[in-house]
Amino acid sequence: MAGDEDDEQSSSLTESLLQHNSIHLRRSSPNNTSQFAIIGSNSCPIESLDYELIENDLFNQDWRSRGRAIKLRYVFLKWTFCLLIGIIVGAIGFFNNLAVENIVGLKLVAVSNLMDEHKYWTAFGVFATSNLVLLLFASAITAFVSPAAGGSGIPEVRAYLNGVDAPDIFSLRTLAVKIIGTITAVSSSLHVGKAGPMVHTGACVAAFFGLGGSRKYRLTCKWLRFFKNDRDRRDLVTIGASAGVAAAFRAPVGGVLFALESLASWWRSALIWRSFFTTAVVAVVLRFFIDICNSGHCGLFGKGGLIMYDVTSDTMTYHLADLPPVILLGVIGGVLGCYYNFLMSKVLQMYSLINERGPIHKLLLAAVVSIITSVCLFGLPWLAACRPCPSMMNGDCPSSNRFKRFQCAPNHYNDLASLFFNTNDDAIRNLYTTGTNDIYHPLTMVIFFISSYILGILSYGVVSPFGLFVPIILTGATYGRLVAVLLGSHSNLDHGLVAILGSASFLGGTLRMTVSVCVIIVELTNNLLLLPLVMLVLLISKTVADSFNHNIYDIILQLKGLPYLEGHAEPYMRQLTAGDVVTGPLRIFNGVEKVGNIVHILKTTGHHAFPVIDEPPFSPSPILYGLILRAHLLVVLKKKDFLPTCTRLGEKALKKFVADDFDKRGSGKQDSINDIDFTPEEMEMFIDLHPFSNTSPYTVVETMSLAKALMLFREVGLRHLLVVPKSSDREPVVGILTRHDFMPEHILGLHPYLMSSRWKRLRWRPSTLSKYLRSFVLWLAHRT
Amino acid sequence: MAGDEDDEQSSSLTESLLQHNSIHLRRSSPNNTSQFAIIGSNSCPIESLDYELIENDLFNQDWRSRGRAIKLRYVFLKWTFCLLIGIIVGAIGFFNNLAVENIVGLKLVAVSNLMDEHKYWTAFGVFATSNLVLLLFASAITAFVSPAAGGSGIPEVRAYLNGVDAPDIFSLRTLAVKIIGTITAVSSSLHVGKAGPMVHTGACVAAFFGLGGSRKYRLTCKWLRFFKNDRDRRDLVTIGASAGVAAAFRAPVGGVLFALESLASWWRSALIWRSFFTTAVVAVVLRFFIDICNSGHCGLFGKGGLIMYDVTSDTMTYHLADLPPVILLGVIGGVLGCYYNFLMSKVLQMYSLINERGPIHKLLLAAVVSIITSVCLFGLPWLAACRPCPSMMNGDCPSSNRFKRFQCAPNHYNDLASLFFNTNDDAIRNLYTTGTNDIYHPLTMVIFFISSYILGILSYGVVSPFGLFVPIILTGATYGRLVAVLLGSHSNLDHGLVAILGSASFLGGTLRMTVSVCVIIVELTNNLLLLPLVMLVLLISKTVADSFNHNIYDIILQLKGLPYLEGHAEPYMRQLTAGDVVTGPLRIFNGVEKVGNIVHILKTTGHHAFPVIDEPPFSPSPILYGLILRAHLLVVLKKKDFLPTCTRLGEKALKKFVADDFDKRGSGKQDSINDIDFTPEEMEMFIDLHPFSNTSPYTVVETMSLAKALMLFREVGLRHLLVVPKSSDREPVVGILTRHDFMPEHILGLHPYLMSSRWKRLRWRPSTLSKYLRSFVLWLAHRT
Repeated sequence: MAGDEDDEQSSSLTESLLQHNSIHLRRSSPNNTSQFAIIGSNSCPIESLDYELIENDLFNQDWRSRGRAIKLRYVFLKWTFCLLIGIIVGAIGFFNNLAVENIVGLKLVAVSNLMDEHKYWTAFGVFATSNLVLLLFASAITAFVSPAAGGSGIPEVRAYLNGVDAPDIFSLRTLAVKIIGTITAVSSSLHVGKAGPMVHTGACVAAFFGLGGSRKYRLTCKWLRFFKNDRDRRDLVTIGASAGVAAAFRAPVGGVLFALESLASWWRSALIWRSFFTTAVVAVVLRFFIDICNSGHCGLFGKGGLIMYDVTSDTMTYHLADLPPVILLGVIGGVLGCYYNFLMSKVLQMYSLINERGPIHKLLLAAVVSIITSVCLFGLPWLAACRPCPSMMNGDCPSSNRFKRFQCAPNHYNDLASLFFNTNDDAIRNLYTTGTNDIYHPLTMVIFFISSYILGILSYGVVSPFGLFVPIILTGATYGRLVAVLLGSHSNLDHGLVAILGSASFLGGTLRMTVSVCVIIVELTNNLLLLPLVMLVLLISKTVADSFNHNIYDIILQLKGLPYLEGHAEPYMRQLTAGDVVTGPLRIFNGVEKVGNIVHILKTTGHHAFPVIDEPPFSPSPILYGLILRAHLLVVLKKKDFLPTCTRLGEKALKKFVADDFDKRGSGKQDSINDIDFTPEEMEMFIDLHPFSNTSPYTVVETMSLAKALMLFREVGLRHLLVVPKSSDREPVVGILTRHDFMPEHILGLHPYLMSSRWKRLRWRPSTLSKYLRSFVLWLAHRT
Repeated sequence: MAGDEDDEQSSSLTESLLQHNSIHLRRSSPNNTSQFAIIGSNSCPIESLDYELIENDLFNQDWRSRGRAIKLRYVFLKWTFCLLIGIIVGAIGFFNNLAVENIVGLKLVAVSNLMDEHKYWTAFGVFATSNLVLLLFASAITAFVSPAAGGSGIPEVRAYLNGVDAPDIFSLRTLAVKIIGTITAVSSSLHVGKAGPMVHTGACVAAFFGLGGSRKYRLTCKWLRFFKNDRDRRDLVTIGASAGVAAAFRAPVGGVLFALESLASWWRSALIWRSFFTTAVVAVVLRFFIDICNSGHCGLFGKGGLIMYDVTSDTMTYHLADLPPVILLGVIGGVLGCYYNFLMSKVLQMYSLINERGPIHKLLLAAVVSIITSVCLFGLPWLAACRPCPSMMNGDCPSSNRFKRFQCAPNHYNDLASLFFNTNDDAIRNLYTTGTNDIYHPLTMVIFFISSYILGILSYGVVSPFGLFVPIILTGATYGRLVAVLLGSHSNLDHGLVAILGSASFLGGTLRMTVSVCVIIVELTNNLLLLPLVMLVLLISKTVADSFNHNIYDIILQLKGLPYLEGHAEPYMRQLTAGDVVTGPLRIFNGVEKVGNIVHILKTTGHHAFPVIDEPPFSPSPILYGLILRAHLLVVLKKKDFLPTCTRLGEKALKKFVADDFDKRGSGKQDSINDIDFTPEEMEMFIDLHPFSNTSPYTVVETMSLAKALMLFREVGLRHLLVVPKSSDREPVVGILTRHDFMPEHILGLHPYLMSSRWKRLRWRPSTLSKYLRSFVLWLAHRT
């Protein structure tokens, strides 16, 4: 153990710094971390969710009255909701695809017809204008109607499932804009996908079932109130999100795993079971609709739309000798992926500066990106040479999407146009098709890969609902084909197979998911024999990319400023105790408190919970009775059932209330203390807070290490964690820890000496990689 | 809210009972729940595992000295271990299959040859004797060498991952007996499988890597000590178990999901990632070995052995009209499954009475079961008529395992013998094969189903290592075929497909797993299009069976008396507070404690942790300093670095220790206080316990509801939870909660009035179902 002495020195320095600087500071200054985050495309206030059971007298009585019948009703409702969520999300998923296929189909048919008449400029005009109009429509409804619907929504859903609530993310308006916006944005041939928004859509649909109906429209029912709490809503949203993934990729197992691996922060075995049921329903619904479409009633839907690349082909064999190219594919895919994330974060930062300036700037940005995309999509195919149709088809390219004529003569096709001038889904299908090693020219692959990589990065920051998944799959497939072409005769692998592996490696390098991506790819391609290769590639690319930066969702979460609570403690948290990060001022209430005091404190602070302390004469010494929530205080104040004197009323106080009164309302729908008026007499009266206080709040002693306090906070899913003193001669509560007190910026702000890299995690930066690469290239050049 | 008054009455009754009866009782009487459980086939003492970070001065210093290099080393080791576990488990899995296929193959070839010569009695003699010898060998090595290797081991692994440790479950001896015993027991044609033991085998292999080498054989290294704690061991065992499942079924994704869904109690995202890597390695290793075998060097291994039923066939189509039979299949499968569990539990209880009497009785039981099985397997096929070989094969049955001649004339086959007179794997493959609707006579299916159902129940309780999975799959497949035969022309579904669905429904009805079983079936059959149907059947059968009893692993866990800590609180726990279940007497130490006191307390109690209290003069009032473990106390006592006077030494006390001294040793390897001798002078000296105490123990206030205390205990993974008093005028610690204090038998023993069904979960009993069924049948009979 070399370096022990150094450590002791630094630790004693640490301690002295700690004692001198912060003890005085920390009790008085409030936590200044931002309570705002970018939701969709606008900055909104955020709030924490509360998964704790509020065990006050009212809850206990309410719970006691739940007989067997009510429990059965609750179970029945849960499963019915799963069924309904599955049906609705499946239908929306199908509808999205139907709409996109038809709109894009109409557009491409019109443009192709003009090109057949050699009206190239008109064709470009029609193409670019329709793209522009479609994207501007999507951007406009997002910017003006529901900014929360912007982007894929996956970061917001992830944050919600981690306990961060934002108004509007699950509103009806958001859902409508999300669906319509996705359809138009994807139809505008922008390099974006429709899979990501399905996650948000599914979560939205599921969240409606957790609202407990609407009192405004009298659409409510006593049964629905079982779900009016954050725990049941969390379960519903998790289920909805997995249904969304399942609908996007027609991958029921992949959907469950995606939600499990990369969305949910808390997971229970029962939830696997219910979300699995939901995704099975989604799969059945999709099958039902596709059966209908197969009879030809769906316009230009054809066989396409819903991604399902059947590649069950006998040419997909591989041997141990194929491992080196596959490993190479994984390594390069990881590097490409980490650069993609790096560039994406830079572009997003730049775009956010533009988008901040207002809706007009958002639309301008969208217009510029749309025009660039249209120029690329229409212009680049001219670089490719016309190729005669393969001889096996008797020199005649079939009218399917695999071969596009573009500007070529009959019986010829333009291979670049077959990729550019198509929906992303069809392009992926083309690239995945086996036995097509000679269909694409190497240069085509180079051009398509570079433009696909760049367009993907440029597109995502535009204000409109769309996702990242499909462009990443497409770019990865191109990268795989490119590698296959470069390898040439050194490998016997089918190029279609390598394209699939390329997708896997690029997904592993950007999204960094493993099991779910693997299962989704296997479900997409319907070929289980691929599994070991896909796994290997994913593992390698993820490992490579993970040593440089975070996955793309984490990067976006950070850019959006969402206070995501990680499941593990940072090393520096072991250096601190819970008492070190508690910030003041702490507001407490007596067991029987004066109305005036309560109103004053509620008006002057933004806290959401207050400790209730019993002092003499109610107890021999000051003891902690429990914790009362602001929302519950407001309900009690509204009833105005005050006591004239400072006496303890006990459970009698509950007579005036039913449990429904205290149900958690939907996000954004909160009472404010300013809405209630009090007479001066009322302000002098008292409330007995005992029956409304949660008597079982979780507590930690102030000497508990912060890392272990975080474990408790995160594992149990708390909103407030009480810090109690070590010795008994002080107030029974020292402070309250909330989500924001665990955020690195807060902790490192209080204790700046922890910033030293010593306590931070290992991570290289992409720039370091560039440096190494450069020196490697220089070394190579020097040698030759 | 009808019934409110009743509730108040009962609750006030509750309270008065609580105050009168238990307050005096609970502090004085210790927790009497059993600290013994049946591990494998013997009753052994069990212990809890400790996943808490022990944050004492030593740990902090040790942790501080971990530089970047050590962390990298740790990460590197973790991945290397995954790779090694994958390779070893994959190799063992393959070896098991190779051995079984060859032994059974030799046996069947010999018997068939004798039958061809019409020496039927000799054939039966050879068959029965070889079966008897093989099973007796397996039973004998289990009973005499390592009783912990008995059974499938899945309940023990599940309990381990829940925090229950038992000596010997992961010892080298257990591993050897497990492998050899499984091979011989499965080769003895008993109606058992080799999949379950692979889980235990995988966990065993992984656990070795967590031992930190062996000091005895000098096979240790400084690096290995990173894993000498229960957290890292838990991770390793989880990974090993998933590798085992993957090796058993050649199902890498299914392996991970199985561990996630039904083995692990705690799971982290990083763990999915690593276990996925391991199962991928297993898949590659298996592929490598099978490639070798395909060149014909594996004796009778052939194409069989490793379950992989390729059923990618075009005849597997289905439509919405097929849903009713599928739903029926699920419902009946659920009922059959719950009865299977019910009967199994009765038989296991009966067998345990026999097995308790000693090894000879165990062997006798094994012999009886083996003879019954041999008689069934050899005798029942005589009931079936000989059938001519199908015409498509030109009247000549191929020599594969699909058709067995048995006693028939050439060009004929005995359909029952094709199932009975085969390995279970081959029988399943026969049943799953599509396009074989007419191969099996309906009566054959009836006979095989009934005998398979009964033999499966009779076999599992025999003392020997084997599993449940394969017989359940086989019984389910037969049940599916039977339903298909009964449906006849009412359904167009292929009988092979219905057999697969039958397996799924029976698995759902017995094991009650969903996602993992579904993925395993899909990976087994290599046909993704089955997914929605398999899901549906599983969901229905699980739902039906769940309303009657627990899954089979839970039943076995309970029979074995393993204190499994559920993730959810039972309703009655909300009625109690943490203080209500704390039992005494509590032993505490002072911050600086007399050696004599420590030795006395360690000798007179079995507690594993003691609160350390600072009293004047070390602090102004008694405060809780931390928690010290028995294991750590023993290490400190062994060094005999005692203080002559009662003074606080601080961190200087650590000089004599390195962190290695305090590493958690492997299960069963613990020091005992009786091994250390003290002189009378030493007994009068002092130890400063401060540097060795965990200063961040988790605490709950005594008024915290028991349900919420359980959440904390379970979610964070604790072994000891300190209960602190509500008011400050008492000792700073009221008691310690451990796993056993949360066990229903303890709580209901202390508070018997909670036994009323009111606070219990909903569950019907199979006997209730029988009652309903009987009245339904009577009603039907009455009508007609």
